[in-house]
Amino acid sequence: MDHELPEYADPKQRPRYLGLATFMRADYAETPDGIEIGMIGVPYDGGVTNRPGARHGPREVRNQSSLMRTVNQATGVCPYDLARIADLGDIFAERPFALEGAHERIGRGFMDVVDAGVVPLTCGGDHSITLPILRAVGKGAPVGLVHIDAHADTGGDYSGSRFHHGAPFRVAAEEGVLDPRRCCQIGIRGTLYTPDMWEFSHTSGMRVIPIEEFEDIGWRAAINEAKRIAGDGPTYVSFDIDALDPAFAPGTGTPEAGGLTMREALRMIRELHDLNLVGADMVEVSPPFDPSGVTALNGATIMFELLCVLAQAVALRRG
Amino acid sequence: MDHELPEYADPKQRPRYLGLATFMRADYAETPDGIEIGMIGVPYDGGVTNRPGARHGPREVRNQSSLMRTVNQATGVCPYDLARIADLGDIFAERPFALEGAHERIGRGFMDVVDAGVVPLTCGGDHSITLPILRAVGKGAPVGLVHIDAHADTGGDYSGSRFHHGAPFRVAAEEGVLDPRRCCQIGIRGTLYTPDMWEFSHTSGMRVIPIEEFEDIGWRAAINEAKRIAGDGPTYVSFDIDALDPAFAPGTGTPEAGGLTMREALRMIRELHDLNLVGADMVEVSPPFDPSGVTALNGATIMFELLCVLAQAVALRRG
Amino acid sequence: MDHELPEYADPKQRPRYLGLATFMRADYAETPDGIEIGMIGVPYDGGVTNRPGARHGPREVRNQSSLMRTVNQATGVCPYDLARIADLGDIFAERPFALEGAHERIGRGFMDVVDAGVVPLTCGGDHSITLPILRAVGKGAPVGLVHIDAHADTGGDYSGSRFHHGAPFRVAAEEGVLDPRRCCQIGIRGTLYTPDMWEFSHTSGMRVIPIEEFEDIGWRAAINEAKRIAGDGPTYVSFDIDALDPAFAPGTGTPEAGGLTMREALRMIRELHDLNLVGADMVEVSPPFDPSGVTALNGATIMFELLCVLAQAVALRRG
Amino acid sequence: MDHELPEYADPKQRPRYLGLATFMRADYAETPDGIEIGMIGVPYDGGVTNRPGARHGPREVRNQSSLMRTVNQATGVCPYDLARIADLGDIFAERPFALEGAHERIGRGFMDVVDAGVVPLTCGGDHSITLPILRAVGKGAPVGLVHIDAHADTGGDYSGSRFHHGAPFRVAAEEGVLDPRRCCQIGIRGTLYTPDMWEFSHTSGMRVIPIEEFEDIGWRAAINEAKRIAGDGPTYVSFDIDALDPAFAPGTGTPEAGGLTMREALRMIRELHDLNLVGADMVEVSPPFDPSGVTALNGATIMFELLCVLAQAVALRRG
Amino acid sequence: MDHELPEYADPKQRPRYLGLATFMRADYAETPDGIEIGMIGVPYDGGVTNRPGARHGPREVRNQSSLMRTVNQATGVCPYDLARIADLGDIFAERPFALEGAHERIGRGFMDVVDAGVVPLTCGGDHSITLPILRAVGKGAPVGLVHIDAHADTGGDYSGSRFHHGAPFRVAAEEGVLDPRRCCQIGIRGTLYTPDMWEFSHTSGMRVIPIEEFEDIGWRAAINEAKRIAGDGPTYVSFDIDALDPAFAPGTGTPEAGGLTMREALRMIRELHDLNLVGADMVEVSPPFDPSGVTALNGATIMFELLCVLAQAVALRRG
Amino acid sequence: MDHELPEYADPKQRPRYLGLATFMRADYAETPDGIEIGMIGVPYDGGVTNRPGARHGPREVRNQSSLMRTVNQATGVCPYDLARIADLGDIFAERPFALEGAHERIGRGFMDVVDAGVVPLTCGGDHSITLPILRAVGKGAPVGLVHIDAHADTGGDYSGSRFHHGAPFRVAAEEGVLDPRRCCQIGIRGTLYTPDMWEFSHTSGMRVIPIEEFEDIGWRAAINEAKRIAGDGPTYVSFDIDALDPAFAPGTGTPEAGGLTMREALRMIRELHDLNLVGADMVEVSPPFDPSGVTALNGATIMFELLCVLAQAVALRRG
Repeated sequence: MDHELPEYADPKQRPRYLGLATFMRADYAETPDGIEIGMIGVPYDGGVTNRPGARHGPREVRNQSSLMRTVNQATGVCPYDLARIADLGDIFAERPFALEGAHERIGRGFMDVVDAGVVPLTCGGDHSITLPILRAVGKGAPVGLVHIDAHADTGGDYSGSRFHHGAPFRVAAEEGVLDPRRCCQIGIRGTLYTPDMWEFSHTSGMRVIPIEEFEDIGWRAAINEAKRIAGDGPTYVSFDIDALDPAFAPGTGTPEAGGLTMREALRMIRELHDLNLVGADMVEVSPPFDPSGVTALNGATIMFELLCVLAQAVALRRG
Repeated sequence: MDHELPEYADPKQRPRYLGLATFMRADYAETPDGIEIGMIGVPYDGGVTNRPGARHGPREVRNQSSLMRTVNQATGVCPYDLARIADLGDIFAERPFALEGAHERIGRGFMDVVDAGVVPLTCGGDHSITLPILRAVGKGAPVGLVHIDAHADTGGDYSGSRFHHGAPFRVAAEEGVLDPRRCCQIGIRGTLYTPDMWEFSHTSGMRVIPIEEFEDIGWRAAINEAKRIAGDGPTYVSFDIDALDPAFAPGTGTPEAGGLTMREALRMIRELHDLNLVGADMVEVSPPFDPSGVTALNGATIMFELLCVLAQAVALRRG
Repeated sequence: MDHELPEYADPKQRPRYLGLATFMRADYAETPDGIEIGMIGVPYDGGVTNRPGARHGPREVRNQSSLMRTVNQATGVCPYDLARIADLGDIFAERPFALEGAHERIGRGFMDVVDAGVVPLTCGGDHSITLPILRAVGKGAPVGLVHIDAHADTGGDYSGSRFHHGAPFRVAAEEGVLDPRRCCQIGIRGTLYTPDMWEFSHTSGMRVIPIEEFEDIGWRAAINEAKRIAGDGPTYVSFDIDALDPAFAPGTGTPEAGGLTMREALRMIRELHDLNLVGADMVEVSPPFDPSGVTALNGATIMFELLCVLAQAVALRRG
Repeated sequence: MDHELPEYADPKQRPRYLGLATFMRADYAETPDGIEIGMIGVPYDGGVTNRPGARHGPREVRNQSSLMRTVNQATGVCPYDLARIADLGDIFAERPFALEGAHERIGRGFMDVVDAGVVPLTCGGDHSITLPILRAVGKGAPVGLVHIDAHADTGGDYSGSRFHHGAPFRVAAEEGVLDPRRCCQIGIRGTLYTPDMWEFSHTSGMRVIPIEEFEDIGWRAAINEAKRIAGDGPTYVSFDIDALDPAFAPGTGTPEAGGLTMREALRMIRELHDLNLVGADMVEVSPPFDPSGVTALNGATIMFELLCVLAQAVALRRG
Repeated sequence: MDHELPEYADPKQRPRYLGLATFMRADYAETPDGIEIGMIGVPYDGGVTNRPGARHGPREVRNQSSLMRTVNQATGVCPYDLARIADLGDIFAERPFALEGAHERIGRGFMDVVDAGVVPLTCGGDHSITLPILRAVGKGAPVGLVHIDAHADTGGDYSGSRFHHGAPFRVAAEEGVLDPRRCCQIGIRGTLYTPDMWEFSHTSGMRVIPIEEFEDIGWRAAINEAKRIAGDGPTYVSFDIDALDPAFAPGTGTPEAGGLTMREALRMIRELHDLNLVGADMVEVSPPFDPSGVTALNGATIMFELLCVLAQAVALRRG
Repeated sequence: MDHELPEYADPKQRPRYLGLATFMRADYAETPDGIEIGMIGVPYDGGVTNRPGARHGPREVRNQSSLMRTVNQATGVCPYDLARIADLGDIFAERPFALEGAHERIGRGFMDVVDAGVVPLTCGGDHSITLPILRAVGKGAPVGLVHIDAHADTGGDYSGSRFHHGAPFRVAAEEGVLDPRRCCQIGIRGTLYTPDMWEFSHTSGMRVIPIEEFEDIGWRAAINEAKRIAGDGPTYVSFDIDALDPAFAPGTGTPEAGGLTMREALRMIRELHDLNLVGADMVEVSPPFDPSGVTALNGATIMFELLCVLAQAVALRRG
């Protein structure tokens, strides 16, 4: 593909605030046929344990993503040159009142997408939705994980449920769709309920880089460590917006002071361009807590960077 | 009781923004013993079908209720002269992820309160919480209802659950804790999913006063009609903050344009002073959607007016 | 058509915050073929003289319009039963920096829509966009007008341009696409630059009902007067959101204290059901000045009511 | 004076958001010489008992007052045709930490203004500032008062001080600069600390029209009553923005639910045009609590209406 | 003490948004008896020279502090394992209108707390409240100080008062309760009224680390310098939230661009664990200027970190 | 000049929130006579391609600039000691609807200012206004440029106009008022429409330092490079507030994630003190998108730092 701009991306044709808001102003596709990377919303926050609102995340991230153009200035990548990309709309839960059924339904949606050969780039919704996605991308073989987050999300039962937004990676590992020895968690911080709240991360072999170690070694060493651990196998990227400092992302359910800057986040993601990526997500943007819109803007920017490296992975696999 | 001000109500002793925020700056009581009217929060919004956040309602209503003083200027009533009143804290759900279990747990909490002889004045949370309250206050005999709301909340199944915030009064009537022929619903408006969405209200014998009829007959005729219908039997009052026009209550889950003004609401509540009231609630304040705080302020004021008429009912029954 | 709910309107199928935001969650149509009423955004605010931002109006009104269901509870009308309705997307200006060229381009877009037999229901954008719409709907014969607004919008030159948002109805009358003797303007108020700022309204034969007269005679008399003046001929409805009091619509470019309530607005619009309506618009919602979203919510509700009476007019003409 | 627009008021010369913000975009005057009506800010809130921020009121009211044009559409009055009007800047307290000294200093400032023959139109600041103004305008003979407010502001000591924002009218009456029998207080409502909190209003002979009486008799009867009581003598008008319902004025220190609408407020003020007015104020706008700016906008509009009737009074006295 | 979670800290028992908001969801204690560390609010802002609102700080910090759990992930410290901790409510001023009297009253409250053997962890209010606290903790012997702030707060008279929020440390040193040679001030920046505005800091022997030096040497060197200067003697920690960059703390009375990040702040505080700490405060959070709540969240997090090092100091002294 | 404080800068005379808001509370001057540095607002945003509102920038920056005092603590410079400084009010466009005419009019205003010997320090408005300023300061000889921005602003035609806010530096270079080989652009980042969107920067010889290079080399090396390139010739400084990360400047028309911190910005500007500066601007603050005011505060602080180095340049040239 050469660089002929699609109409939606041509500033001479359309102001950016125009029309139905799709992710990155990409075309909307009813079905995954022929699509290589599908941007998908999951407006679900039934798994949050404190502040809700992430159900409204996909809409507002779509809205703010209109500020994204088509070429990544830092890397020169134009994802639309590398892969066929569309907004595939939202995958939703028929029975939002029941956490487990909701995840089952979401899982079927992603199974269809993955079966159609589409690499999913998902916008949450709360972090519990990563579990059904991992079940889809990891059903053939367990995937590795680059996980950027304030929380390890490998906790145990919470109020009688194992499926809340603090546990998806534990359940995924236990189900065998995630390989914990190929997982790296970056940016972990904040207070804990018990000293061993993230014990599963350690005992299962995940590599945890708390924010203090991150500060000391710097973003380049941190992401290189994550790449080393993920290796050549199929790998998923999960970016919880609360990985960012609340100055950069106040609009989220469980903010933790002292987090990543956007400069650190952007540069880390770009380094993932040569991994064997099979999907990615950006979750936990909660618009009701985001009066200036900066959280959704940063979430949309993270998604664009993820789109670029996913497109590079698709192109790489295509050869 | 004569009018000796408790410390919390004496402006010469304490600025209003001082200390832990309790409802109306009333004393907090660990147990219901000796209390006649208990103000209770239910920070639960698992039943909402669209915008969440009412779980944060009790805290913010407590905060804004510090603006309330002790004497009702319009009626001369000082509720603290008429009844022993306390903030009884929150009743909560152990398993917030499961709607039905949550309501069961909330119901047990209210059963304890009612069994201790306390008249509950509850702050939601979403409107689904009125169901477990009605089960407690109506367990001996079905209660009548003065219901001020934009929605009749007598819908059928929603996404596979009957316990969402659009159906409590139907379930209560079907369970026999609410007498539909002694129910009056005021302020009903907005769009519907089906023409007969509130069919149960009509077939069960409830009196529905849509906002247009309300406008035409005025607040005085409307509330007199409600009183006539409720009669002398034990009666509950449920005030959904979305009864108010969104100019007065933007911070709620399901706002409907063209609602009540606060002047209409206040004057209607005051007329209930001679009913046989057994409890009341004010629900659906959602602070994340309330940037100016006006919704919580109006919610706190509604609660104060309800407190006054509940205190009058308590004093009346005491003789 | 009977009342079989389309999928987008079925609460058992989709939560309301799901998917791409279209007006009223209606289907999006690429072309006007087969559509009877087309909901259209015009994200343009090049004509404002003070506070900008109405260019972002269509997106946010689409977003808030998800709160609309399918049946008008007050009138029983389900517009989707009466007419084929779709969101036709946005009509935009290729050269946003030039006011006159922009209006020409917008005019061509509406000419295409009207030529396809579609009745346009437009969401602005600033009020200057009504001029190109009137050129389309009035090209055969001048139309009458029910105009609800704080400003008569019949001023003269402003800073060297006749095409700003304070003059569309004067230009339309002068061009012969609007019949001033069949125009009624309701809600006019606020301060003026000169005592005769709206002189054209009076000299051209428009009927002006200032807010004070409106208060004295009431909404019913006011809208009846407007209907009498519009008569049986083809008539357009233009609703400037600043007709509402700023308590109901703070998010607009030129707010004027002391305006309509939503209750008055809703009831007036419903009375238009038996006019020969050929189109309608709701303009001047400016999201950057609307922190609580109440302006966009009220704007979406106004649009739903306009949709109902347009659908009734379409059904009436169909016979 | 004929109607030649000053440059600041000519829309062809200057956009409204241009330049230093003065009240109504009037000229700023360093000294009161030759001015007949002086608009003055008093950025002081040392007298508030709860929420502060009124110190920032004059700036934000000046900013929003740019939306005011020059002619009152309802009455046809152009105040600039009737009187020489200027923004005289702010009168400030040298020692803001000491309430009594502050009022003394503010009083000297107003004494200078009144001695120069200027009719003051003041923007607060909290309501305590009306006391030093009354000392200036009432030093020759006690003035009558049209007082529109949620609170009678005739309380006793508060936390050891008599000079807080809840007592100015009592102190003024006791000092003999205010004639209580020529005072009318409109819109009084809200809760009280003691049943007789406003006892002084009653015992001193003030006429109190609580909001409930106001609702029952209507704005026209209420303001006629106030005019009858004020009579022909020199009269002052004090408008506390919290007289308005919080939907119209959330940004104030002591909001009280269930207040005036702007339509009621505007029409009442216009009726004062034939009183012998010697000054007026609009107080208690607190911008930090006003995210949408609607409070400051309404405050600016109230000031414009007060300016019109003051100009009419000046013209009447000039003969 | 072993790690048996108190009920309030057990996520399986209570959602975090439940109940009356106390600092860190700790128990509330009526009296200091048996408490080792008391968290105390001082809702007072009579000393601010510009933007008010810090009087509302304790309530909102309590509210946001519900996000804190019980174990410090970075250090492994659970303060509740090390010391008996309670929320002791607010210490308030009887006469808020008089700055000096207010401080005297606040001082008596802290004297009682300190006399009862409690280490105070205070939440302001404005910075002037640190003076009465220092009088209590330093009455036996002058204390050292780790002072993190944008302003040295050692100015001279301001508008005729020495007790405003810009001078507490000068007065404390002059009164002999603070040893200036054991003081270190970190983060000082912003504009000045006179070149020697903080002259007292220098002449009295305090060590001032302006933000530029801080940037050049890094957080580790800065806090080590502060520890060297404070030495082994009893030391107090005062953290003004305006030490943070306004991106992290917009909601404060005197923001200064270019400040600390939360990562720097958190890591510095943790290093204080082996000082002989006798108290600490976090001041100047002003909720009306904090629409996203990020300032209160960061303030609560700072308080939790201070709680951890105070608990370590208490345990260390206990031996 | 010695350090005798002007009245406006003396904290003992005036609280900071007092009076008409001028830039830095400096005196307002009707004419440029005798002024050496003139602070000027250009409330114009007709050139924005996406989010508007910068027209309201000068007012809000003036308002927030009241927080600035008179002495730069970091450098010891008091600009008022070095140069005669005034707020010269706003330069405005007579015909705001026509982009080109607007710039012509703005250009004439600046020509007058520069001809009077005044060094302009301008507050935008959108970035298109820098073009007419450069025409004035560069009319004798092309100027060099230190340009701190997220965007190179050297694009080509946009929607048929060359004069939008994305192209001023290209037009200026082509017109010969800007010497591209003496231009350095710092902080460039974000997505592009085409890979060669900023091609003109490169082909014309400008030095571009993208944010990634900036991060790697640090602020000191970056600004030293800019100074080397600007050299001894007359040089202009243009600071687009979107150079800052959106955490520091959410209120702008085209935010780009991952930008400068304020610490980096402040330190870079201070290094410019020995350049031959002939003017500076700070542009693109859009208050409607700035709920916390942090953008305007940072913009005002940037302006103060620019004022200091401009004053140093004036003093240096004076000798």
